[in-house]
Amino acid sequence: MEKNIAVIWGDCSSPEIVKQTLRVLDKVAEKYGHTFHYTDAAMGGEAIDKYGDPLPQHELDKCLAADSVLLGAVGGPKWEGLPGEQRPEKGLLRLRAGMGLYSNNRPARIWPQLAPASPLKPEIVAKGIDFIIVRELIGGVYFGKHETYTLENGEKQAVDSMPYSEHEIERIGRIGFETAMKRRRKLCCVDKANVLDTSRLWRAVMHRLQAEYPEVEYSEMFVDNCAMQVVKDPSQFDVIVTENMFGDIISDEASMITGSIGMIPSSSLGDGTRGLYEPIHGSAPDIAGKDIVNPTACILSAAMMLRYSFGMTEEADAVENAVNKVLDKGLRTADNMSEGCTCLGCTAMGDAILAEI
Amino acid sequence: MEKNIAVIWGDCSSPEIVKQTLRVLDKVAEKYGHTFHYTDAAMGGEAIDKYGDPLPQHELDKCLAADSVLLGAVGGPKWEGLPGEQRPEKGLLRLRAGMGLYSNNRPARIWPQLAPASPLKPEIVAKGIDFIIVRELIGGVYFGKHETYTLENGEKQAVDSMPYSEHEIERIGRIGFETAMKRRRKLCCVDKANVLDTSRLWRAVMHRLQAEYPEVEYSEMFVDNCAMQVVKDPSQFDVIVTENMFGDIISDEASMITGSIGMIPSSSLGDGTRGLYEPIHGSAPDIAGKDIVNPTACILSAAMMLRYSFGMTEEADAVENAVNKVLDKGLRTADNMSEGCTCLGCTAMGDAILAEI
Ligand SMILES: CC(C)[C@H](C(=O)O)[C@@H](O)C(=O)O
Ligand SMILES: CC(C)[C@H](C(=O)O)[C@@H](O)C(=O)O
Repeated sequence: MEKNIAVIWGDCSSPEIVKQTLRVLDKVAEKYGHTFHYTDAAMGGEAIDKYGDPLPQHELDKCLAADSVLLGAVGGPKWEGLPGEQRPEKGLLRLRAGMGLYSNNRPARIWPQLAPASPLKPEIVAKGIDFIIVRELIGGVYFGKHETYTLENGEKQAVDSMPYSEHEIERIGRIGFETAMKRRRKLCCVDKANVLDTSRLWRAVMHRLQAEYPEVEYSEMFVDNCAMQVVKDPSQFDVIVTENMFGDIISDEASMITGSIGMIPSSSLGDGTRGLYEPIHGSAPDIAGKDIVNPTACILSAAMMLRYSFGMTEEADAVENAVNKVLDKGLRTADNMSEGCTCLGCTAMGDAILAEI
Repeated sequence: MEKNIAVIWGDCSSPEIVKQTLRVLDKVAEKYGHTFHYTDAAMGGEAIDKYGDPLPQHELDKCLAADSVLLGAVGGPKWEGLPGEQRPEKGLLRLRAGMGLYSNNRPARIWPQLAPASPLKPEIVAKGIDFIIVRELIGGVYFGKHETYTLENGEKQAVDSMPYSEHEIERIGRIGFETAMKRRRKLCCVDKANVLDTSRLWRAVMHRLQAEYPEVEYSEMFVDNCAMQVVKDPSQFDVIVTENMFGDIISDEASMITGSIGMIPSSSLGDGTRGLYEPIHGSAPDIAGKDIVNPTACILSAAMMLRYSFGMTEEADAVENAVNKVLDKGLRTADNMSEGCTCLGCTAMGDAILAEI
C-alpha cells in the first residue's frame, strides 16, 4: 500500500521521538512492501515561529490532504507568555476541530515489565490495569464560548460555556459501546449528572444507546468518584466514556498509575479513517537535545495509526511486539530505568526497537 | 461559652455518626465548661421526605440563626430518581450558597497509623502526605446557568456555564495565601488556563495577591497535570487553591490516597465565623443501621468547628488528640481494619474517643 502521512515534528524534545518513529515506519514499509510518503506540517511552537500562528490554514490543509497525521508533542517555555489565541495548544485544539476528530482513545495499560514503576501498591497493580478512556475531543467547555468582560461595577467577569448537543454525545457514546464490545464489554459513563445539564443529556443519550448494546454491562459514575476509583481499584474499569474536560483529567490520572507515561500512545479519530496519532506525554523541554527522551509512546502511536487508519494489523502487531521484546531484554530509557536494566538514549532505543521488527 | 449549633442529621448511615459526634461535643462542653444548644435542621433526603423540598427556607433559616452548622452526609438510592431540583444534593448546594460559604477547606493528610491503607506505594507515602485543598464553593459551573433546549433541527442541546468574577476569585485566593502562611508557605493554583477564560482571570487575580504575600512560594499547575502529581508525588503540595469543579475532583482523589476517607473532615466558611462542617465521605447507604460506619470524620469535623468557628483551640486539640490515641491503641472501624487491630462498631468507636477526652 501507498500512504501519505503528514508529520508534525513538534517542539522541544519532540523532533527526537518523531525521528525514531519515522525510522520504525520506514522499516515496516520495507519489510511489508508499503510506501509511506511524509509531508512535514508545522503546528504549535514551530508554526508560531515560522508563521506567527500556531496552525495556519495551509498547514491544516496538509493534514487534511494526508491519509493520517503523526504528531510528537507541542509547546514549551518559549511560547508560554503568549496570549491565548497564539499559544501552541491553540494549534492542537484547532487541528482536532479542523480534522473533525471527536473521539480520543487513550489506553491505560500496565506493561508487566514496568509494573514496579507504578505509584500504586503491588497488590492493586496485581489485580490488573487495562482500560481505555474514550474522550470526546471537540465539544464541551473546550469549544464553547469563552468571554471576559467588565461588569457595571467595574470588575471583570469571565464565563466559559460547556455545550453538548445530542448528536455529539451519540457519536462518541457509540464509540464507547463499540470499543467495549471489542473488549470485556463493560462501559462506564463518567459525568457530573448531579450538577450539570450537559451530563444529564449525556445520560439520556447513553440510555438510548444502551438499548442497542444489551451485551454491554453499562454503568455511570460521578467524575469525583471516578478520580478516587482510578487510584483505589483500576481493575474495575474496561472502557470509560466521558466528555472532553473530564476525559482530560481522568486520562492523565490513569496514565500516571501505569507508571510509564513515556509509553502511552493515543489516537484521535472522526468519521473516516484519517486520524491524529500522538503520545499522551508533553514536549519535555527540560531534556530537549540530549537524546534521552523516550521515543516509545510516539512509536506506539504510529503502530495505532497502522492499525486504525491503514488497517495494517500485522504491521501494528510487529511494532508492538518489538517494543515488548525490547522491554523483555531489560532495555529502558532514563524515565523508566530500574535496577538491573540497561539505560538507552532515544536513538539507541529506536535502534533496539528497529532491530526487533 | 454558649453556642448554638444547627445539626443536620443527614440520610442513611449519617445519623449514626452525628449521634456519636454530639456525644463528643457534650463531653467537651462538660469538660471545658461550655454550653452547646442543638437545633435540628432538615436538609437532603430527610427534608424531601418531610417537606418535598431538599432545603425549605425555614430550615435554611435555622442554619443562618445558629453559630455554626454540623452536617453528616445526605443522599441515598431512595431519592436518586428525582429530577435535578428536588434531589438531596441540591439542598446541599443551596445550603452552601445560602450561607455564603465560599471557602471549602479539605485536608489530605495521612494518619501514620493508617499509612498502610494508602493505595500508594510505601516509598511515596513515606515522603509525607499533608496538604490542604482550598476549594471555591459557591461559584463556577455549579452555580452558573444550566440550560437544555431544542435546536431548530429538533435535537436537544444542553449548556452549562462557568462564570467567575474578580471578587469571587480574590476572596478565595486570599484564603489560599493565608492558609499557606500558617503552614509551609507553598501555594499552588490549579486551573486550566490553556483553555479557559475563567482560569486566565484566576491567574490575573492570583498574581495581584501574590504581590501581597512575598513569603509564599506560589506556583500554577494545570488540573490534568495536578491529577497526575497527586498520585506521583503528593509530598510536593502544601496548599492547593482551585475553583469549584476542579476542587471537587482533585480533593476526592487526594482523599483517596490517604487510604482513609472515613477520617477526613471538612470546613466551609464565608466571611464570618459561621461555618458548615461535614465529613467528605458520603452517606454510605449500604451499611446504614448496622452500627459499623466510622464516625471519626464527623467527629473531626466537629473539632474543626470548635477551632475555626468558636476559637476553641484547646478543645479542638483535645478531640484530635483523642482520635490519635485511639488509633495508637489499634482501635479501628471496619473500613480501616488491618491485622493486629481491634474492630469497633460506630458506637464503640464513639465510646473509645470519648474516653480519651
Ligand atoms: C494541551 C491541552 C490543550 C490538551 C488538552 O487539554 O486537551 C492536553 O492536555 C491533552 O490532553 O491533549
Ligand atoms: C454532592 C455533590 C453535589 C457535592 C459536590 O460536587 O460539591 C459533593 O461531591 C462534594 O464534593 O461535597
